[in-house]
Amino acid sequence: MTVIVGFGEMLLRLKSPGAERFFQSPQLEATFGGAEFNVLASLSHFGYDTRLVTALPAQSIGAAARTELQRHGIAPGFVVAAPGRMGLYYYEAGSNLRGAQVIYDREGSAFATAAAGVYSWSGVLDGADWFHVTGISAAVSASSAKAMTESMAQAADKNIPVSLDLNYRKHLWDRAGRDAASVMVPLLDHVTVLFAGVDDAVACLDIAPPPEGTALEQFRTVAQQLMARHPRLAVVVATFREARSADDQSIWAAAYDGTDLLVTEPLVLRDIVDRIGAGDAFVAGYLHGTFCGRSILERLAFALSADALKHSIPGDVNLVTIPEVKAVMHGHDPGRVKR
Amino acid sequence: MTVIVGFGEMLLRLKSPGAERFFQSPQLEATFGGAEFNVLASLSHFGYDTRLVTALPAQSIGAAARTELQRHGIAPGFVVAAPGRMGLYYYEAGSNLRGAQVIYDREGSAFATAAAGVYSWSGVLDGADWFHVTGISAAVSASSAKAMTESMAQAADKNIPVSLDLNYRKHLWDRAGRDAASVMVPLLDHVTVLFAGVDDAVACLDIAPPPEGTALEQFRTVAQQLMARHPRLAVVVATFREARSADDQSIWAAAYDGTDLLVTEPLVLRDIVDRIGAGDAFVAGYLHGTFCGRSILERLAFALSADALKHSIPGDVNLVTIPEVKAVMHGHDPGRVKR
Amino acid sequence: MTVIVGFGEMLLRLKSPGAERFFQSPQLEATFGGAEFNVLASLSHFGYDTRLVTALPAQSIGAAARTELQRHGIAPGFVVAAPGRMGLYYYEAGSNLRGAQVIYDREGSAFATAAAGVYSWSGVLDGADWFHVTGISAAVSASSAKAMTESMAQAADKNIPVSLDLNYRKHLWDRAGRDAASVMVPLLDHVTVLFAGVDDAVACLDIAPPPEGTALEQFRTVAQQLMARHPRLAVVVATFREARSADDQSIWAAAYDGTDLLVTEPLVLRDIVDRIGAGDAFVAGYLHGTFCGRSILERLAFALSADALKHSIPGDVNLVTIPEVKAVMHGHDPGRVKR
Amino acid sequence: MTVIVGFGEMLLRLKSPGAERFFQSPQLEATFGGAEFNVLASLSHFGYDTRLVTALPAQSIGAAARTELQRHGIAPGFVVAAPGRMGLYYYEAGSNLRGAQVIYDREGSAFATAAAGVYSWSGVLDGADWFHVTGISAAVSASSAKAMTESMAQAADKNIPVSLDLNYRKHLWDRAGRDAASVMVPLLDHVTVLFAGVDDAVACLDIAPPPEGTALEQFRTVAQQLMARHPRLAVVVATFREARSADDQSIWAAAYDGTDLLVTEPLVLRDIVDRIGAGDAFVAGYLHGTFCGRSILERLAFALSADALKHSIPGDVNLVTIPEVKAVMHGHDPGRVKR
Amino acid sequence: MTVIVGFGEMLLRLKSPGAERFFQSPQLEATFGGAEFNVLASLSHFGYDTRLVTALPAQSIGAAARTELQRHGIAPGFVVAAPGRMGLYYYEAGSNLRGAQVIYDREGSAFATAAAGVYSWSGVLDGADWFHVTGISAAVSASSAKAMTESMAQAADKNIPVSLDLNYRKHLWDRAGRDAASVMVPLLDHVTVLFAGVDDAVACLDIAPPPEGTALEQFRTVAQQLMARHPRLAVVVATFREARSADDQSIWAAAYDGTDLLVTEPLVLRDIVDRIGAGDAFVAGYLHGTFCGRSILERLAFALSADALKHSIPGDVNLVTIPEVKAVMHGHDPGRVKR
Amino acid sequence: MTVIVGFGEMLLRLKSPGAERFFQSPQLEATFGGAEFNVLASLSHFGYDTRLVTALPAQSIGAAARTELQRHGIAPGFVVAAPGRMGLYYYEAGSNLRGAQVIYDREGSAFATAAAGVYSWSGVLDGADWFHVTGISAAVSASSAKAMTESMAQAADKNIPVSLDLNYRKHLWDRAGRDAASVMVPLLDHVTVLFAGVDDAVACLDIAPPPEGTALEQFRTVAQQLMARHPRLAVVVATFREARSADDQSIWAAAYDGTDLLVTEPLVLRDIVDRIGAGDAFVAGYLHGTFCGRSILERLAFALSADALKHSIPGDVNLVTIPEVKAVMHGHDPGRVKR
Repeated sequence: MTVIVGFGEMLLRLKSPGAERFFQSPQLEATFGGAEFNVLASLSHFGYDTRLVTALPAQSIGAAARTELQRHGIAPGFVVAAPGRMGLYYYEAGSNLRGAQVIYDREGSAFATAAAGVYSWSGVLDGADWFHVTGISAAVSASSAKAMTESMAQAADKNIPVSLDLNYRKHLWDRAGRDAASVMVPLLDHVTVLFAGVDDAVACLDIAPPPEGTALEQFRTVAQQLMARHPRLAVVVATFREARSADDQSIWAAAYDGTDLLVTEPLVLRDIVDRIGAGDAFVAGYLHGTFCGRSILERLAFALSADALKHSIPGDVNLVTIPEVKAVMHGHDPGRVKR
Repeated sequence: MTVIVGFGEMLLRLKSPGAERFFQSPQLEATFGGAEFNVLASLSHFGYDTRLVTALPAQSIGAAARTELQRHGIAPGFVVAAPGRMGLYYYEAGSNLRGAQVIYDREGSAFATAAAGVYSWSGVLDGADWFHVTGISAAVSASSAKAMTESMAQAADKNIPVSLDLNYRKHLWDRAGRDAASVMVPLLDHVTVLFAGVDDAVACLDIAPPPEGTALEQFRTVAQQLMARHPRLAVVVATFREARSADDQSIWAAAYDGTDLLVTEPLVLRDIVDRIGAGDAFVAGYLHGTFCGRSILERLAFALSADALKHSIPGDVNLVTIPEVKAVMHGHDPGRVKR
Repeated sequence: MTVIVGFGEMLLRLKSPGAERFFQSPQLEATFGGAEFNVLASLSHFGYDTRLVTALPAQSIGAAARTELQRHGIAPGFVVAAPGRMGLYYYEAGSNLRGAQVIYDREGSAFATAAAGVYSWSGVLDGADWFHVTGISAAVSASSAKAMTESMAQAADKNIPVSLDLNYRKHLWDRAGRDAASVMVPLLDHVTVLFAGVDDAVACLDIAPPPEGTALEQFRTVAQQLMARHPRLAVVVATFREARSADDQSIWAAAYDGTDLLVTEPLVLRDIVDRIGAGDAFVAGYLHGTFCGRSILERLAFALSADALKHSIPGDVNLVTIPEVKAVMHGHDPGRVKR
Repeated sequence: MTVIVGFGEMLLRLKSPGAERFFQSPQLEATFGGAEFNVLASLSHFGYDTRLVTALPAQSIGAAARTELQRHGIAPGFVVAAPGRMGLYYYEAGSNLRGAQVIYDREGSAFATAAAGVYSWSGVLDGADWFHVTGISAAVSASSAKAMTESMAQAADKNIPVSLDLNYRKHLWDRAGRDAASVMVPLLDHVTVLFAGVDDAVACLDIAPPPEGTALEQFRTVAQQLMARHPRLAVVVATFREARSADDQSIWAAAYDGTDLLVTEPLVLRDIVDRIGAGDAFVAGYLHGTFCGRSILERLAFALSADALKHSIPGDVNLVTIPEVKAVMHGHDPGRVKR
Repeated sequence: MTVIVGFGEMLLRLKSPGAERFFQSPQLEATFGGAEFNVLASLSHFGYDTRLVTALPAQSIGAAARTELQRHGIAPGFVVAAPGRMGLYYYEAGSNLRGAQVIYDREGSAFATAAAGVYSWSGVLDGADWFHVTGISAAVSASSAKAMTESMAQAADKNIPVSLDLNYRKHLWDRAGRDAASVMVPLLDHVTVLFAGVDDAVACLDIAPPPEGTALEQFRTVAQQLMARHPRLAVVVATFREARSADDQSIWAAAYDGTDLLVTEPLVLRDIVDRIGAGDAFVAGYLHGTFCGRSILERLAFALSADALKHSIPGDVNLVTIPEVKAVMHGHDPGRVKR
Repeated sequence: MTVIVGFGEMLLRLKSPGAERFFQSPQLEATFGGAEFNVLASLSHFGYDTRLVTALPAQSIGAAARTELQRHGIAPGFVVAAPGRMGLYYYEAGSNLRGAQVIYDREGSAFATAAAGVYSWSGVLDGADWFHVTGISAAVSASSAKAMTESMAQAADKNIPVSLDLNYRKHLWDRAGRDAASVMVPLLDHVTVLFAGVDDAVACLDIAPPPEGTALEQFRTVAQQLMARHPRLAVVVATFREARSADDQSIWAAAYDGTDLLVTEPLVLRDIVDRIGAGDAFVAGYLHGTFCGRSILERLAFALSADALKHSIPGDVNLVTIPEVKAVMHGHDPGRVKR
């Protein structure tokens, strides 16, 4: 079975109930998430063999996070129990004209404070078919950035393809006081598949803002520059979103492979349940298409359908199977009750 | 007061909370439903005298189902306490592009295993003004099919009009290993009012698929064949649905009375809360119109409004009164708060 | 800091959970509301110094209401502990074609039965910059109407501007058996800012129904008559609503200042969470614009954005800050997650 | 089947969740209760034919109360829909050294304000085998006291035995401003079975406080006086309670039949779940014993076991069957899981 | 790491909330359990490598059960996806004098209907250090009894020690219509460690009822007979329970090893949270002691402490670690908050 | 009104629901606590004028904490909005033999990282009648220890009495890497009322372990040493606890005033709901007795009753009034329902 390894932080997610603002009720919905964990969990629900390399606190909350890994079928054997706290984020969902709010609280976490050397990359990558990382780990702390750099270099050495989801978090970089571009740009030399939108690429990849134009034209311009600068890159992929309200949006996706710009039709999402993790669901979908040897357009279509489904599911993780994604991709009737 | 008798199985309905997939939380919303029960409960809320003939397990869960009958004002005196389990179904609501899912778990239930002879039809039908059944009872088990056949024959003998909601459940028939048409077609000879869509009629009533055409044309073709073959039939009624998403749909209805095809305007349903039982709400509405001596078009309009309201109410049962249905039928302003 | 005083009743709000009809579950969501309280709470969240003059029962439920005042930062020192019960209302939210339902249960409340003389207006209004009342207090009881009259006269004497939200509640006036116009019209002589729609003005302000025309033309006609009759009035303000369903509506606002009719663009509200208190949120927004010296059109735009946000928040109170309202006013992207 | 009629008010019961004080969470558990309703509901679960004569508000909350009647199998046909509000009470459970708190809010209710003449006693009592009332209805309002007086006189005329649970509520009588004894004492002339403790009898039955002595001696003294004064009385029954904490108590019962004082052994109740309605459960148990022709001691033992079981069940109503009560009476092992 | 294999059915556990009777609220707590699963889950939380051999339905509910296996760290690779339903049980907790109630609903389950041949025992037992079964699997169906027989014989052949928890369920055997003793007695020839109380042994192991005496004397007599008849048996173990109420009980344990009767001190359990699965927690504790090479008395002490802890945890599974069990065993202060 | 100032950190409290272990359900009960906040909140519910000096994060969670201050009537004007996160703790309640567990997560909090100089003590203490601190603030960080030292010195200068609750948290001091005694001992020179048990005093106050003896004898020995060394101390107070289980305990209290050892009777607490904050409730009770000029024994009795009541209330805060505490102190019947 294809083995996918990811590296990144798990977070406790504390959400106010339903559409409530924080602390209207003395309750928080408490689940787990994290960009890389989300991607692996989704791939695990697709049937892949997945491993998360991470550090978790050596107490009950860290143990619960590890249990959550197991629940989603991700191999728990690559978790380092470390000092430090559980990173977390507070989440308040948006509704009609009120946007959603995320408050990160991850400083001092076991992952952020773990020394780069605690991970034994050569063992970890042994037998791996793919390695996935995101820009968040580069931003979290100097030591996590160092570990990420090391891991990507080793993967490249072993000819394991690496995917990187840029996931630019201005807030984290500002706090860190490090220059995002000087960390991120060198990493791209190890990357085969890059997930990056125009604004994020401009913000942290030392890319000139594209000239005025449509979103797709701008994306192509940016992708061309990136592929020119980083020859290992096989494809740059991005998703696009148009919001009529916090609950009613359209999404579509595009990829540039150095030659062609492939673009999907948009999907309309009404009555959105939870959009956190939708980008990670997209990544997992795209990687699945890649592992199956689909065309780039087919990968995008599958990934966008996975992304769409995530909007219907509470929590960070895209709890869907391959047939469920395919049903959306093939335009099934969402109003039919499957009996 | 008009007395309506129904025959069919009550089911425990186990639904994952809100928009969650199964077992995201260790909770299930636990209510009761069942096509015939739903129709009677709705009629009871309209003020009618209703009786459900059924078998329930002779333990606490069966007792709770009986309590639920009472709560909705349905006479509990026609329930047979029997061996066997409580039939149930698991329900996961859909959301935007993710469709809903129902998993039936009704094999071996008290209703399925009760011998046809446990019901004393002549007493049950005594004083009845109407008898309602659905195709589900014919599919559940050979003995329930036998009981249903007997009951319909006796009702016809007593000149009690019989309505039948086809409710074709392929899954149940497949499991049963019996041929649906050979069971269902003879039953139609006792039926006055038939609720049946085109696909279902073709699937289990030994009717030729209609030629290409609009949905309404096809419905008329099918209804004509049925009325020709079963002279007792006074009307064939169907509802139609167009789904933009699991939450945003339009519904309309049509009836063929042997001469005319009557059709309603569509109603637009945004932010659907729960569509299970909407067809049963429609049937109850149509029967009410019939009992009141309304025109077929008026019956359809009332029934469609009842159907629409069901989409706004959690659970299987349409908890609405006649004035509430009429308000929708007369185009009240849904944005007004009634104080 | 600007000091705003309000006079009116707090109510316990008992809502069936989610989209349920009353008592589907043996639970009621239990929060507090009341038109004047809602306005002050919103102004308090905007940073103003607010005081609610009211009477609450001298038992644990009254104490809880007082705690709620404190929670929102409203000065609790102007509450009179009195005999009588806690006024309350039952609330069942609407959904798609089913409208919402409010059942008032406020007769015999501490507020309704408190003698007009229990409030010491001169102390209460000491240092006040603004006084806000609604037509509800005039309807609740003869003694509350008397207290309201007294308070408005004293405020006028002290040159404290008075705003009045007409909030015509037919049901309350009918129960009271008093003629609304004979109570309300004299009060308008003390009012500077009036919030009143056309239908309500006609119903209780002894104003002739306007000739046929657009909603805005009719509003101008009514406002002109009121301003002519009550020279202290500086502006008459109204909101308008168009409902596609209980969940999907558009709102806009207008004001007439004696010369010009100012009108906002409409805002579209999809997937409405809770519209109770939206009018009060509007009033608070308008008053804030007034206190800041904004133009009337700017006041309306801010107020309408506040009104819109309330539709996204469960409960009576608009739990939003000034920057959040401004973001909506300036057309922020509601689909963006603020991190 | 034995037919028992009761007369009294149903109340909405609003309880803070679990062991919380009021409004720690914005939730109230919302069920229905009322002394007479509780007795009938329990008898209905024992299999009796029961009828509640009462008045409920002609709106949705009253309708829900009526639904609750049906759910417990009490005939709803004797309910008068009337103007006025739904009577209610707030309930905060006690825990260890903190006692429970009930706040009544029943003034102005449909029951309290219904004219005595709205009930047609002759029809109501037609076919009745027993009539049950409590002292609460005498206290609620002058009109309910009048209706109660009328009903008891008619029952006595028809030779229907009447049971009265004294249920002295000082708070209600104080509010009412009427002298309890002058209302209650004449009523006793119609009563066959009286449930009354020593303190309550002294407080409202114009009985001299008994001389110092044990609780049982004092009870005998009081019962003797009552039976001497009211020759129709066949038995006076009382329960006794000793509390180690709000959760850990012992209960026992006694009856005086004019000759003997019968006394049960105490039952120890640890981890009490809900003691509201325990007295009503006792009454229902005692009446069942009476209807079965048991000895007084057997009636007490059954009644005390029913009383004990109520302490294990949330809500006002004793949701137990006769076999379950008998199991306790016969000393079953409460630690055994019944499979 | 020690590898423990178990064979048995997983069940969906549907519990009424808190101390409620069934369906007081329209909710059921929905978790998973099953005697063998519980033992393995507890051992997995102790750090062992565990495998459950079972059949689960090939639909979403079966998939959720499998997820639950993973969550507790049990290897999911030995699950057979099969036709048939999910076995389940309804559970109503007891409280003070009201005993708990379990209603099994497991007929027709995937496990019950799976052919004995679907399990490949030789692969399953490969590398196993211990094999655990219970008498429940022998009772569920003829095919599960056959599979169990086969598996035990193979384990014995491979010299893998087998533990058997008798877990006599009269209800299941009665339904099955098979003679328990004729199935169970031959199985004992393969068993090394037997968990069995006196009553159960007499009921299904063809053992003569012991003469009058203390519980411990009777246990010794029974154990002696069993060990004489089944020479492979190394030890017979039993737990004892004395209940003051459903919430307040004492437990202790004993074992007979052919020579000595070892007995623990009792542990007092107040305010019991959930006693389901306590016996399975005991078994897991005993096996752990065995794997560690402790004395029988130490095994019993550890097992009883694990058993005690289970009473404090909701659900079937004993979510405790070895240090937590040891703390109880060593008499830690349960009133201290561990910070 | 007496004005009490406190200095210390507020914490978000995240508790697993009911008796569940962490993350059995994806929910956390989310309230606020903190030793000094708890004391002030309790005093505020007693009617005092209270002020909390603290630092809270300048984001929505900090704002919610501030709202919580207001809710309990604590003046919010002394809160500094600062960078840094919200300190929090995870709490898992114990049950029978399983002890409770608290996991602190307060490093890097706004309070811990705020510079000592952000508080303007002279303004803060202006008008204060009492100043309360705990040893926790000395342990949290060097800067909070410095702020605490400064504040106590200033209070002493202004002759404002200072109370100190030792609250030794080994875990915090270990993490901090500072020597507790070297920080704490000098602070005692400013303290008038000290709350400290024997073990804590020995652990962090540089006091020799007392010779063997009863708990009370040891307490007297320790208190004597402290009072000899710190002449400003007027009294040393301690509580004692004996636990039969996590739910069933006894508590009592003692004080040494330099001459006499005053000791209360024990109170038995069955079915404990929540013991967190009980010590803070005791402190608030003792201070109230002090402010009222009661004897030391009366102060202890009132304080112990307040402490006892806290065990019946979920959350950190003792939501009780003075009359409620007095009722316990005077031995009211906890089994009586107050109507």
